[in-house]
Amino acid sequence: MPQPKFDTVAVVGSGVIGRSWLRVFTRAGCRTRLYDKDPQQSARALAWFDEDVALDRREGLASADEAKRWRALITTHTTIADAVKGAGFVQESGPEKIELKRAIYAAMDQAAAPSTILSSSTSALDIEAIAGDLPGAKRCIMAHPCNPPHIVPVVEILANKKTTPEVTKATIDFMTEVGQKPVVLNWYVNGFLLNRIQAAVVREAFLLVESGVADAEAVDSCIKDGLALRWAFIGNFGANHLNADDGIRAYFARYADAYRSMIGDLETRAPKFDEATMAKIVRERGFGEKPEQVRAFAQWRDRMIVRLKALKAKHPQQ
Amino acid sequence: MPQPKFDTVAVVGSGVIGRSWLRVFTRAGCRTRLYDKDPQQSARALAWFDEDVALDRREGLASADEAKRWRALITTHTTIADAVKGAGFVQESGPEKIELKRAIYAAMDQAAAPSTILSSSTSALDIEAIAGDLPGAKRCIMAHPCNPPHIVPVVEILANKKTTPEVTKATIDFMTEVGQKPVVLNWYVNGFLLNRIQAAVVREAFLLVESGVADAEAVDSCIKDGLALRWAFIGNFGANHLNADDGIRAYFARYADAYRSMIGDLETRAPKFDEATMAKIVRERGFGEKPEQVRAFAQWRDRMIVRLKALKAKHPQQ
Repeated sequence: MPQPKFDTVAVVGSGVIGRSWLRVFTRAGCRTRLYDKDPQQSARALAWFDEDVALDRREGLASADEAKRWRALITTHTTIADAVKGAGFVQESGPEKIELKRAIYAAMDQAAAPSTILSSSTSALDIEAIAGDLPGAKRCIMAHPCNPPHIVPVVEILANKKTTPEVTKATIDFMTEVGQKPVVLNWYVNGFLLNRIQAAVVREAFLLVESGVADAEAVDSCIKDGLALRWAFIGNFGANHLNADDGIRAYFARYADAYRSMIGDLETRAPKFDEATMAKIVRERGFGEKPEQVRAFAQWRDRMIVRLKALKAKHPQQ
Repeated sequence: MPQPKFDTVAVVGSGVIGRSWLRVFTRAGCRTRLYDKDPQQSARALAWFDEDVALDRREGLASADEAKRWRALITTHTTIADAVKGAGFVQESGPEKIELKRAIYAAMDQAAAPSTILSSSTSALDIEAIAGDLPGAKRCIMAHPCNPPHIVPVVEILANKKTTPEVTKATIDFMTEVGQKPVVLNWYVNGFLLNRIQAAVVREAFLLVESGVADAEAVDSCIKDGLALRWAFIGNFGANHLNADDGIRAYFARYADAYRSMIGDLETRAPKFDEATMAKIVRERGFGEKPEQVRAFAQWRDRMIVRLKALKAKHPQQ
């Protein structure tokens, strides 16, 4: 991996997303300045970082030298002004509350050098509402990852009205340089692309279980032993294209009516998301709920995805 | 793989799904009797079979001996009565037209030995409507695969009102023995589990492209470089469970309202599925549309999924 265009970056917020960005940026060789006003929260993020790198080492995915080098790239800071010093790119990953995001952005805009890009991990808010009225709105942008970004590469890019094309391009280039897969939204929609598609699946999966037509293991099996085996390589349109020997146009020429019928039949209400259904899902899927069980499951998921990405890199589509 | 409980099976219909069942059953060691009233159609299915096995051989996924043995297990037949002779299990994979399915089932029910299970690959019709009024309704059942079944293991099982519990159990056991992953539906819903979930994704993916918020490559990237990397290992509920350090209950305690908001915002209409959108998707995704290009893409997909399944088998969840 060549050295990315920004040799110093800041990560503002040290929660689940912020700590994962630490791995993305240090792996790419960036000096990474972590802000959290609570030093204990930063310490927890670093403990997670060390444990996660140790797992990679055990798997042969990182050397002792790399582990040491990555860790040495991180410094921690308890004020935003201190954290953004010298950073060419800031990735904000604070709580999803508009007042908090606006306050954080105001502080970042005031403290950061004029050319510094201020990028938000927000999964729900419009970057226009967060930063559109700041003096430095033109260097503010959204880069929303899929959790966890150091494992799952896609990042949704959305500009506000004043973002310059240069800032958008530099953000796309930088995200590509650090190993992510940026995709561009032309305007704001609730949930962006990623969470809208996820919400469509969440709704149908929950309604199928709530209605009793099948259990949670059956529903998840349709995804993990079925649809997602195709989607992981070819996406939705790719799956449509290959569902007929003669491609996507022929497929929908034959099946558009069947889709219209099914879509007309899908319920439009939200699931209840009630306690009884959650308990049923946990039982039927056999989920451990203790923090160490959740962590072990997440670690297994992460290592499997790393292996899958290696498989895709080794055998690219011709 | 131990010898499955049925040493002789029949595949009724030799299209995209039927030919793939040939691979499932022969790989498991079953003598497989293929019916198509058009011998040229059967010949095309066998040509595909040979080409697909040859690819597996080139990849080291099948030996010369296996290729020879599998091929020798197939016989072709131009009448249903002939095809079902001696078969303990019949997998029907005819066209998705209720009149045709009913006629095929009537012929199978008349010709097959009383204990033979008559299983349908139908992706859209209710097995009750297909076979519920036949004298042998009790041995009729649905086993709907995800295309192509010799690559993607999940199979949806649905009984009709008269299907005996023994037939359901034997179907589940047999599907498991031949390497599939059966899941049970408690009653009929339009699209079953698999295609309802797929339809939810198809709708959202098409509407995002039709509306212009992003291009088709961006939408598919959210799936293949994002959501489906998680789904392929842990399904939807697994992804929900791991989206918070403290599990699925905590995740929805925090985010159920965000999901309600997104779901309330998802459009309920069907996409247009119009020619302009199809052309846009083909262009933006770079799909080849010549039959040989579609075939090469499908072959790549199949080999990637085989490798992914090997990865999952090698590193099971602890």
